[in-house]
Amino acid sequence: MLLCDVGNTSYHFLDDKNDYKESVKTFNPHAIKEKVYYICVNPHAKKVLETLDNWIDLSRHVDMRNYYDTMGIDRIFACESISNGVIVDAGSAITVDVVESGVFVGGFIYPGVKAMAETYKNISSALNYSFNYELDLEKLPKNTKDAISYGYLKILHNEVISHSKDILLTGGDADKLLKLFPHAKIDKTLIFKGMKKVIAKKL
Amino acid sequence: MLLCDVGNTSYHFLDDKNDYKESVKTFNPHAIKEKVYYICVNPHAKKVLETLDNWIDLSRHVDMRNYYDTMGIDRIFACESISNGVIVDAGSAITVDVVESGVFVGGFIYPGVKAMAETYKNISSALNYSFNYELDLEKLPKNTKDAISYGYLKILHNEVISHSKDILLTGGDADKLLKLFPHAKIDKTLIFKGMKKVIAKKL
Repeated sequence: MLLCDVGNTSYHFLDDKNDYKESVKTFNPHAIKEKVYYICVNPHAKKVLETLDNWIDLSRHVDMRNYYDTMGIDRIFACESISNGVIVDAGSAITVDVVESGVFVGGFIYPGVKAMAETYKNISSALNYSFNYELDLEKLPKNTKDAISYGYLKILHNEVISHSKDILLTGGDADKLLKLFPHAKIDKTLIFKGMKKVIAKKL
Repeated sequence: MLLCDVGNTSYHFLDDKNDYKESVKTFNPHAIKEKVYYICVNPHAKKVLETLDNWIDLSRHVDMRNYYDTMGIDRIFACESISNGVIVDAGSAITVDVVESGVFVGGFIYPGVKAMAETYKNISSALNYSFNYELDLEKLPKNTKDAISYGYLKILHNEVISHSKDILLTGGDADKLLKLFPHAKIDKTLIFKGMKKVIAKKL
């Protein structure tokens, strides 16, 4: 079985053994002839995939009543994969979603690492620093690198732990955030797990 | 007495009666012949102002031991104006600084309203919303506008109130943030108050 999670920057595949990525800029979905179960947040790719018979859009097979209309389908499938917890998906955006007793409670969207570093840099060249993930979260900063790191990371940290649930990190920047949430679990296949669960239930 | 707080986008003046702004793009500081006490965070304007004898740089007259080297001089002068409190200066960046018994404890830097809206929009056109300042802060969102508003505003809110101090809002977007901090005071002249205090003490 071939699964694919199509994002804004890459096609993320999982076959029976491995997961691998292809850039949205260079990958041609026509090249795959076998059946692919996919979800897609990328509006451009979506249009192409809809025309291909062997690409099966799993978004049609999920019970949407728990979610909201404009919610990214990747967030929905990550939520489908667990019964309880906070999912932090760190990609081009960081989405934080809370699931309780198998039901999506709500969630929020925060800029991703790259987007936020860019934001600070664009405000002023004086704010052009990489983030310090080893920041002391208990202490108000007294230098610029920590002042932007605290602004970006500490307040995200406090919101995420405020829900007192298991924390699941996924997405390309999950490893960076593990420093902030040492008790969290990294699971880069959460979305695929949600996809498999929906396939098992509905297809 | 003429005071001027030079930012990245405007020259903010205070004369004996009124405050007013001039764009950094069009204003020519040579045009002013009287004495101007100023502070300046804008590297380009700084170079020009240093060459003008009637523009007096107040940054040289503040005791820097309480602050840190690369801290914006506007933040320092806002801190000089109070003895206790949290200052939230909402401009192109939002700086949050804590002062206790007249001493700067520390602070952090968060993207300003415009920069953050731009960040979300650049991540995905699906995130192109203005922020909802009337967001219910007690409830995890279930729609995109609130999901980005919560990501931007709620977690800032919680950090600011966590210090259990009087909150002072200043800067161009102070009015917007008042909805989040209904017990805060808006004081758009904080930096000027700090400048006057330093002039009274040191000049």
